[in-house]
Amino acid sequence: MSILVVGSVALDTIRTPYVTGERVLGGSAVHFSNAASVLYGDIHLVGVVGDDFGDDHVAFLKRKGVDLKGLEKAKGKTFHWEGYYEQDMNQAHTVKTELNVFQAFNPVIPDAYRKDSHLFLANIDPDLQLRVLDQMDRPKLVVCDTMNYWIETRKDRLVEVLKRSDIAVLNEGEIRQLTGAMNTLDAARKLLDFGLRYLIVKRGEYGFLLVGREELFSGSAMVLNDVKDPTGAGDSFAGGFVSYVASKRDTGFKTLKKAVVWANLIASFNVQGLGVEGLDRVTVADVRKRSVAYARLTEFGRI
Amino acid sequence: MSILVVGSVALDTIRTPYVTGERVLGGSAVHFSNAASVLYGDIHLVGVVGDDFGDDHVAFLKRKGVDLKGLEKAKGKTFHWEGYYEQDMNQAHTVKTELNVFQAFNPVIPDAYRKDSHLFLANIDPDLQLRVLDQMDRPKLVVCDTMNYWIETRKDRLVEVLKRSDIAVLNEGEIRQLTGAMNTLDAARKLLDFGLRYLIVKRGEYGFLLVGREELFSGSAMVLNDVKDPTGAGDSFAGGFVSYVASKRDTGFKTLKKAVVWANLIASFNVQGLGVEGLDRVTVADVRKRSVAYARLTEFGRI
Repeated sequence: MSILVVGSVALDTIRTPYVTGERVLGGSAVHFSNAASVLYGDIHLVGVVGDDFGDDHVAFLKRKGVDLKGLEKAKGKTFHWEGYYEQDMNQAHTVKTELNVFQAFNPVIPDAYRKDSHLFLANIDPDLQLRVLDQMDRPKLVVCDTMNYWIETRKDRLVEVLKRSDIAVLNEGEIRQLTGAMNTLDAARKLLDFGLRYLIVKRGEYGFLLVGREELFSGSAMVLNDVKDPTGAGDSFAGGFVSYVASKRDTGFKTLKKAVVWANLIASFNVQGLGVEGLDRVTVADVRKRSVAYARLTEFGRI
Repeated sequence: MSILVVGSVALDTIRTPYVTGERVLGGSAVHFSNAASVLYGDIHLVGVVGDDFGDDHVAFLKRKGVDLKGLEKAKGKTFHWEGYYEQDMNQAHTVKTELNVFQAFNPVIPDAYRKDSHLFLANIDPDLQLRVLDQMDRPKLVVCDTMNYWIETRKDRLVEVLKRSDIAVLNEGEIRQLTGAMNTLDAARKLLDFGLRYLIVKRGEYGFLLVGREELFSGSAMVLNDVKDPTGAGDSFAGGFVSYVASKRDTGFKTLKKAVVWANLIASFNVQGLGVEGLDRVTVADVRKRSVAYARLTEFGRI
């Protein structure tokens, strides 16, 4: 089993009511890897950085067990996002997005990664996601993400990506926009008709749904009152999910249910710190301990 | 054990994308009673109707086992609400509210009700809620509701109601407005400081929280794709909750957790039909059957 993620590596400037960070390590591929590394020692990452990408960031990724053969270093500046959150932490306000070297990103999958079993296509241009799929040698599980921008501008290509993926991890706004259906369950089932096996619906602080053609699982999110920075929560969720599935060597519904619960716990650590800090130093034992708290939070026996 | 509800009895004109009804039976006290009657045969209701309140509505309430000693018949028209829902069924749009005889409502609790053990103060003027409390002889459990309008205009009186209640059933907007805290858990805990034992936070289609000083329970809502009319969902939830607690003769946390799950199941029937129709004819066996579906929806074992 081996995990490959293709996505952005970024330097983020973030302000929240609780923390502030200037050009801290971020990006979808980084948050995914940071999360997956709790359970999985060898993550393959394909992305691009500029010449301003510090050695400390490289060292961080190496410490996380991220293999950097696929991390291209290009002339120019690293992808940069600047944004802030107000008291309502569900809403990110973007100040600016500078694509920089990410603008010309053309993911080349190293030969050593082409047979990787578990692939996460983070939120990038669907054309690039398809180009990644073209380079892969029948992965066991393909999980993809996207965003409203690609739904608006590249819907046809995105539908191709969904057809060639097993599972998509999307939020409610995205699945409504993609299908035109307002009811979450209707929208989710419509999306399955595109060819997905399962859809994960992220509902932020409320929880998540795992939707199959005949199967349905709904979970509460951890309830927290020390959220410091929600940046990367979705990608951390995906990293937790894919790593759990990879560790089980099984993609049955029972395993996928446990995987979304694990993903939720992992994401709950992510939001408790700035950038990648929330999940840094988190061990499997920490997650297991939180899973006990989660069971206490959600179990009610039989009515 | 005996259940008393004080609130509105209304004739509602409702349009949703799926159903339409002209002056159908509604109001907080009615939806509460309709929900509580699934489990409990004898509901005491205090409210007021006008001379346009049809015999069919009286017959409906009687069939539900609602005792009508406390239903005052006044000269004039019954409280009337007209509203509609668009595709996003979470948002009610009010066209008009005619208070009519409800304007001068001054709840007088019949002697036979003053020793009732379980009291639900539905969303009415906090002054009236306090007047009800003044007439009661130490009820075992007082549960209250309110709305943004009373928080804006009668906050001091409302805080008195909370002090004298055991449990409040509120939504996230209301608890933020009441406390000024944006984080749901922080806001909930602040509200407990007003003197409540527990707070139930209604999160609509996402689920619910039960918050105590040291205890916390989070549940998913039933996931439905046949919501026809959400009117009365909150009051049905309250009716399910109070009736479950009354049937158990216990108010410990374990029982309260099961009670909010029961309440959620009851509310899920309510929204599947226009007005009171969704819950009409629903039996305990129907709710038990849905509780099996709910367990399947939410259980994942141990990760």
